[in-house]
Amino acid sequence: MTEKILKILLVEDNPDDIELTRIALKEGKVINKMEVIRDGEEALDYFQKNCLSPDASESDLPGLILLDINLPKVDGIEILKFIKKTEKIKRIPVVMLTTSQRDEDIVSSYDLGVNSYIQKPVEFDKFIKTVATVQLYWMLTNTPPLLNGKR
Amino acid sequence: MTEKILKILLVEDNPDDIELTRIALKEGKVINKMEVIRDGEEALDYFQKNCLSPDASESDLPGLILLDINLPKVDGIEILKFIKKTEKIKRIPVVMLTTSQRDEDIVSSYDLGVNSYIQKPVEFDKFIKTVATVQLYWMLTNTPPLLNGKR
Repeated sequence: MTEKILKILLVEDNPDDIELTRIALKEGKVINKMEVIRDGEEALDYFQKNCLSPDASESDLPGLILLDINLPKVDGIEILKFIKKTEKIKRIPVVMLTTSQRDEDIVSSYDLGVNSYIQKPVEFDKFIKTVATVQLYWMLTNTPPLLNGKR
Repeated sequence: MTEKILKILLVEDNPDDIELTRIALKEGKVINKMEVIRDGEEALDYFQKNCLSPDASESDLPGLILLDINLPKVDGIEILKFIKKTEKIKRIPVVMLTTSQRDEDIVSSYDLGVNSYIQKPVEFDKFIKTVATVQLYWMLTNTPPLLNGKR
């Protein structure tokens, strides 16, 4: 396992859900830092500047992307498509974290290679528990990809 | 979330690891049944007969595949490649469950679209805890794919 502390990237426009995700991070005693991006266009800009520019280093890449589906400007399905077809970032685990229970969102996400699809519970306690479980699973249990093919 | 109880398919040749995975299932109070396949060739046969034949129904498909890498006859990387390129089964979450820490196994798995990569701990207690975490995450927290495009 890698020793460096990976960063979590949350793409989410709902301020309440951002706050709850931060609380879940604390509850789960997850030590990873979290960056928040609030719309789809900003997310694509983020990847271009922080991950794909020639001076971006491997340590700038997030270790986990938590992606909402219903986002302003560019939706989460489009962002997932971009991530999974882009060589330098396609191995980063992407977890859909969404209220959407629409069959087509679930099918599209799996078809595009999402790593996991999570429906956000509506109740406060369940939301915190579920999001903490997701963060702990991907940060502690899962072995992260070797983004540049080596450790 | 789907109401039907999904089946776990374990592809593993080591009898001790099979037994430990069964114990983990009980420890985690996972109610899903588990089928075990002991070599890679048998796994490919299983998919042909139980998932891809014209009379195979959706309920025959496993809801989670736990896949070892070092297997007799056909290795886990080849099986992963087969699953992820085969329309009817490509959305089933596949978790590598392996002792391999080889960089090329990790990179190949992510490149081929594995959902998650887990290194089996050597210690008994850690093995049970890790495998129970994996089973609970994929059976309870993750929203399963709609294998035929609908519930």
